[in-house]
Amino acid sequence: MLNETYREMLQHKNVIRELSEFATARGKEIGYENVFDFSLGNPSLEAPASFTEKMTELLRTKNTMTLHGYTPTLGNPRFKEAAAESLNKRYGMHYTAQHIFPTTGAAGAVAHSVRAISKPGDEVIVIAPYFSEYTPYVEGAGCVKKVVPADTEAFQINFEELEKTFSEKTAAVLINTPNNPSGVVYTSETLTQLADMLHKQSERFGHVIYLITDEPYRDIIFEGVESPYVSSFYPHTLSCYSFAKSMSIPGERLGYVAVHPDCEGADVIVPMCGQISRGLGHNCPPSVIMQAVAEVIDDVSDLSVYETNMNLIYETLRELDMPCVKPGGTFYIFPKAAEEDAVAFCKKATAYDLILVPSDGFGVKGFFRMAYCVDTEKVKRAMPRFKQFITETYR
Amino acid sequence: MLNETYREMLQHKNVIRELSEFATARGKEIGYENVFDFSLGNPSLEAPASFTEKMTELLRTKNTMTLHGYTPTLGNPRFKEAAAESLNKRYGMHYTAQHIFPTTGAAGAVAHSVRAISKPGDEVIVIAPYFSEYTPYVEGAGCVKKVVPADTEAFQINFEELEKTFSEKTAAVLINTPNNPSGVVYTSETLTQLADMLHKQSERFGHVIYLITDEPYRDIIFEGVESPYVSSFYPHTLSCYSFAKSMSIPGERLGYVAVHPDCEGADVIVPMCGQISRGLGHNCPPSVIMQAVAEVIDDVSDLSVYETNMNLIYETLRELDMPCVKPGGTFYIFPKAAEEDAVAFCKKATAYDLILVPSDGFGVKGFFRMAYCVDTEKVKRAMPRFKQFITETYR
Repeated sequence: MLNETYREMLQHKNVIRELSEFATARGKEIGYENVFDFSLGNPSLEAPASFTEKMTELLRTKNTMTLHGYTPTLGNPRFKEAAAESLNKRYGMHYTAQHIFPTTGAAGAVAHSVRAISKPGDEVIVIAPYFSEYTPYVEGAGCVKKVVPADTEAFQINFEELEKTFSEKTAAVLINTPNNPSGVVYTSETLTQLADMLHKQSERFGHVIYLITDEPYRDIIFEGVESPYVSSFYPHTLSCYSFAKSMSIPGERLGYVAVHPDCEGADVIVPMCGQISRGLGHNCPPSVIMQAVAEVIDDVSDLSVYETNMNLIYETLRELDMPCVKPGGTFYIFPKAAEEDAVAFCKKATAYDLILVPSDGFGVKGFFRMAYCVDTEKVKRAMPRFKQFITETYR
Repeated sequence: MLNETYREMLQHKNVIRELSEFATARGKEIGYENVFDFSLGNPSLEAPASFTEKMTELLRTKNTMTLHGYTPTLGNPRFKEAAAESLNKRYGMHYTAQHIFPTTGAAGAVAHSVRAISKPGDEVIVIAPYFSEYTPYVEGAGCVKKVVPADTEAFQINFEELEKTFSEKTAAVLINTPNNPSGVVYTSETLTQLADMLHKQSERFGHVIYLITDEPYRDIIFEGVESPYVSSFYPHTLSCYSFAKSMSIPGERLGYVAVHPDCEGADVIVPMCGQISRGLGHNCPPSVIMQAVAEVIDDVSDLSVYETNMNLIYETLRELDMPCVKPGGTFYIFPKAAEEDAVAFCKKATAYDLILVPSDGFGVKGFFRMAYCVDTEKVKRAMPRFKQFITETYR
């Protein structure tokens, strides 16, 4: 019989999907270029030319069996080595290829990480605002998601609330920095305090509490913002990365888990991920993509566009006196909505062809997310419309 | 804490892995060309030239955002359409794009299918000999694998045993034709009888029992062998395919589930797979591969090599009077071992640098599998060695 859990998931009212459907329908009426769609986190930049060149070269020069054959269960060795070297060089770490497990994007990385360090019934703590897909990743592993309410002043971590959330069932804390949806980067102070608390709570409960850090936006950092490498603060850290955003290749599904070399179980977590993969039917990201990315691993798209867009939006918000924590990276901004009910706010915005996402799905009420991975030209055209929406509706 | 289930899986003695490690080590000593390694199902053929050409053309002509951007949750529309059209044309079916869910290989297809039509605790029936990875796919969904003992005469289905295996908990029967490891193709008679039994048992228990058919070898069929399309026999069928073997691109992880249009839940199973994917962190096969394969979907590698290899081995077995059901397709053959203990038999073969896989992991004792996806030249060189092994050891 059909699985009722998954069938029932289809019935859930999904605000983002409704907004996206509205955007598509409206686009057909007035042209999609006239719909100011800030709902989707789909990179708007070209992939680095070096990636395309490397792909073309591989297709021209390599035997198809080498290029498209099965990858070893634990991943392409050259890719793993390149990822480890890149992290060591950039962050002073000491990973080896054996600490890297390639995955289908950061999604696969988080899903594997949670399964590796928990058993069904355990708790995984997430910090609001958090990426809404953490719910299926955590629940898919049979774990219970515990939410720490947001620090709405700075979107760092509300440590008082976090401290109360630990229990003997806590397997891990799952964080996301630079953060989707807030755009905020956790500071060194935040990460130091988090590491201290994790050490203390691990000792209190007599077992290591892991830190899973989801970092697909690690390379999108704005001017003057310090971006500390999370794993260097706490040894029991699994760092989840994706090339989706830095290289603008989200559809190719390439990411990895980097297991801290000093982590408890550092020698077995990657092989365990290989076993987890079997049951999920996941079995490795695409071979040719791994081989190409291995050779251009530090190259990125021209990411400066996102900062330009962020500044345009941030200034508009300031002009309108709308409270907003300035993003330190990503391509998201997370201002306070002009009324308490963020869903109502975003629905009203559609009358101005503005597609904004209410904060409720991210575990906090009264804010909205704008994804500014769109053409700067469109952001510029959208700002007067946004002002019009706010002044006509709320002033 | 580390998940003990996955950690414990690392301790399992894995005969295939041991053999593969022996082959690698021995290859370093005497040159891998002198190790007659028949252990791995890794295609030995070039991908179709049209695939490489299409990939190159896409990289040259398409905007990288179109090429590498996020795919819609339920898959690339053009790929889904091409897959449906191809099946309709070849097998007289009436699929639409809405019945196709693209997956990371047949592995992802089977893993999703089992989850879609079962709940934890349900039973999934497999027919020995069966692909050993069915165990993690079925158990990963929380289901119980029930094994029907092999029909060792013909490697069709032992219906007397199958009939006894159904219970009120049966969610599905999972078959694999053309079969890994036997190489046998289920006949129309077998599939008709199977469909009859599924109808009868569904009625008996008051719920539809699904048929999941794993068909990555569907396009590797030898001369004169009839290869019926499984889904045309029973409406409640989920057909799992992969381009790994037909196009020799296993590392690129592209396959699909095709949900029979008359299946119970035909309208919801693909969207449910989308929900399942979220929890697994699977989220779509690679974009550029889907786009390329969509345009060359009916092209295959020069698959005739496998039949040449099969005939060489089959003749040798006949010369040695070793019982063997002649394969109708795939690149596997599954002869009776020359002693009862197939593991002992395969271990003795290594003294002759022959790497053969004992049948125990496929749910039947006393046979061995040879994967002849190797150069014909190597098969030719291996045959005298195989004869020497048998005559010196057993005659």
